[in-house]
Amino acid sequence: MAHDVSPLARPFPAIPAIAGATPRVARAGYKDWGRCDLTYVELAPGTTVAGVFTRNVCCSSEVELGRLNVAQGQARALVVNAGNSNAFTGYRGREAVEAIMDQVSAHLGCAREQVFVSSTGVIGVPLPKDKARAGIEAALVAQPCDWEAAAKTIGTTDTFAKGATATAMVGGKTVTLGAIIKGSGMIAPDMATMLGYVFTDCAVAAPLLQQMLSAAAEASFNCITVDSDTSTSDTVMAFATGAAGNAELTGWDSPGADAFAAALNAVCRELAHLVVRDGEGAQKFIAVSVSGAVSDASARRVGLAIANSPLVKTAIAGEDANWGRVVMAVGKAGEPADRDRLSIGFGGVWCAREGLPLADYDEAPVAAHLKGNEISIEVDLGLGDGRATVWTCDLTHGYISINADYRS
Amino acid sequence: MAHDVSPLARPFPAIPAIAGATPRVARAGYKDWGRCDLTYVELAPGTTVAGVFTRNVCCSSEVELGRLNVAQGQARALVVNAGNSNAFTGYRGREAVEAIMDQVSAHLGCAREQVFVSSTGVIGVPLPKDKARAGIEAALVAQPCDWEAAAKTIGTTDTFAKGATATAMVGGKTVTLGAIIKGSGMIAPDMATMLGYVFTDCAVAAPLLQQMLSAAAEASFNCITVDSDTSTSDTVMAFATGAAGNAELTGWDSPGADAFAAALNAVCRELAHLVVRDGEGAQKFIAVSVSGAVSDASARRVGLAIANSPLVKTAIAGEDANWGRVVMAVGKAGEPADRDRLSIGFGGVWCAREGLPLADYDEAPVAAHLKGNEISIEVDLGLGDGRATVWTCDLTHGYISINADYRS
Repeated sequence: MAHDVSPLARPFPAIPAIAGATPRVARAGYKDWGRCDLTYVELAPGTTVAGVFTRNVCCSSEVELGRLNVAQGQARALVVNAGNSNAFTGYRGREAVEAIMDQVSAHLGCAREQVFVSSTGVIGVPLPKDKARAGIEAALVAQPCDWEAAAKTIGTTDTFAKGATATAMVGGKTVTLGAIIKGSGMIAPDMATMLGYVFTDCAVAAPLLQQMLSAAAEASFNCITVDSDTSTSDTVMAFATGAAGNAELTGWDSPGADAFAAALNAVCRELAHLVVRDGEGAQKFIAVSVSGAVSDASARRVGLAIANSPLVKTAIAGEDANWGRVVMAVGKAGEPADRDRLSIGFGGVWCAREGLPLADYDEAPVAAHLKGNEISIEVDLGLGDGRATVWTCDLTHGYISINADYRS
Repeated sequence: MAHDVSPLARPFPAIPAIAGATPRVARAGYKDWGRCDLTYVELAPGTTVAGVFTRNVCCSSEVELGRLNVAQGQARALVVNAGNSNAFTGYRGREAVEAIMDQVSAHLGCAREQVFVSSTGVIGVPLPKDKARAGIEAALVAQPCDWEAAAKTIGTTDTFAKGATATAMVGGKTVTLGAIIKGSGMIAPDMATMLGYVFTDCAVAAPLLQQMLSAAAEASFNCITVDSDTSTSDTVMAFATGAAGNAELTGWDSPGADAFAAALNAVCRELAHLVVRDGEGAQKFIAVSVSGAVSDASARRVGLAIANSPLVKTAIAGEDANWGRVVMAVGKAGEPADRDRLSIGFGGVWCAREGLPLADYDEAPVAAHLKGNEISIEVDLGLGDGRATVWTCDLTHGYISINADYRS
């Protein structure tokens, strides 16, 4: 956290305690950080689990094991190591993860596959087993902490702690969701150097929780991009302790399932936005809304082509209403588009409609909009009913400074 | 040309006169540049033509008409406007191009479709017809110029003039190729804000010239990337005047066809490298060589995923042997790869082999290599015989400065 706090930062929300999910932090000393870097969350027996993971084929052992073990549906603990991603470390990396699973499952008296591990940081250095062991020993006897401390501890290049919370009425009970996330660079669809965790006291059967989390990720984490790069470690998991006492949600038609899904969607969207708000070097938060596409999926791909374009992102950084670069990005998306039906606007003001610059285009309100730090780009393809919104940030000198200096 | 000359610049080569192709330049005044901005090349009757064009679906009228008219195989003139791309300008843009074709074809007494027009610069402003007309009138009566003057005149944000030349023995005659190109940003496969022109006195039938140019582009222009953005105007054309007096090449088995194709390949590769060497903000020229892929096409896609990764490009800018970011880029390419067979090196020194950091890895020679400005990244996927090399440049503060300031 050596960099200045992002100008787009949001204050950490007041996340209440989540019954059945108890966070603790400790210092394993993976890097010379002088702060806690190991997060341990103990989960009550019966906690169900779901997860979505990076599609990067060079994924870490943590991701491989997580993807495998989430299928059995139960979780008793989560361990997050910050400062070393343990990715691309072969059998030694895998041994380090398995040692953590052994240590924690022995302590809790649970099955090994109910212990989930994530690691984030430098690639290619095996996680040191001795440091992990000592860190976990310290965490097991530490006092429980609040969610803000946990959010800070999972961070690496993050400039602020990120969390979200929501409640829902489920079968006459109020259930609470509390969530934390880390990530600022290497963010792209199919996720990011992004580790996100949602905890809830709602009782949800694991298969339904997985469906709900997958759907929520599609409209949140898979709609953000900072630099088009996809990490080897990206993980978002949901843990449902059931301590709220509601009748377990087992299907979309269970009473309260809609309310819980809406709360989960809201939390995931907020987490995704927070990651973009901490995009490396970000000065402006950008929403790209595409309408008139042949399908929603096509709209999203066009939106991401715009959101990933270095030329669009630098234009926004320069507060330049350079809609020509948006045209370029639409054209290169590989999706159906017709130059002569295309309309482009900024901040709700059209610059070009149906393939032509507007004759009476007044740049003043657009220029004023671009001086702010919440930017919207609107694109109408004029072809169909498909629509999507994706989120990104501008590309600035800060991104270069952070990534040309960050040491491997 | 307001920016400092790229540190990767090459001196303009001594391109001889190409019999049958006569360049002239003039000042149309599309921008307040105080220099020539209109290039006119008159081509002898019987000149054959070939072209490859952007696949951006929002392409300019110049590209639409060029793609259409190249099919008839003959060219008498080329006009290149610098400072205004005339893209996304609807019917008014098209009228401006057609007016130029009318003016020049009337002057030469040729068919209108034998006049080829390119424009480069800002998108969305119709090319001013009056300025174009006066510029062409001036060019028609100007003294012929050398190829370096033409190369300078087609440039926009280029920091140096770019050209290449070669000769070949074809049927007992020495044929000469001279070529110029412009482009520095918005460079990506399927080309770039890139306008390139190859002139030769060799006699080549138009269908063969098209085949040869398409093949040469595949291994040159389609293997470079600066910022992953694809322009609406990209064009590479070849013009063969036939003035060398060789027996016309009509097929790949014509005597001398191999020699001519080799020279054309060499010229296209040099032009492509020069564009990367003038990549906006580039400080280092990077060759990414991928071997062991399941196919050559797969190797190229993996290479481009690496070459387009902002995290890899900033690591090279920072002279950081961050091979973990290369792992990440391989993994996100969407191509077959196996983490545990992957090897990565810089400057011919392996950092990781078969999925593991090398135990005896000596970073000193790699660090020394990365301090230079000609960088190589080697990736072996360990799966098959597919291989490819792609070229890019690093991502620096210079890129941000140029593109956050460049005015729409």
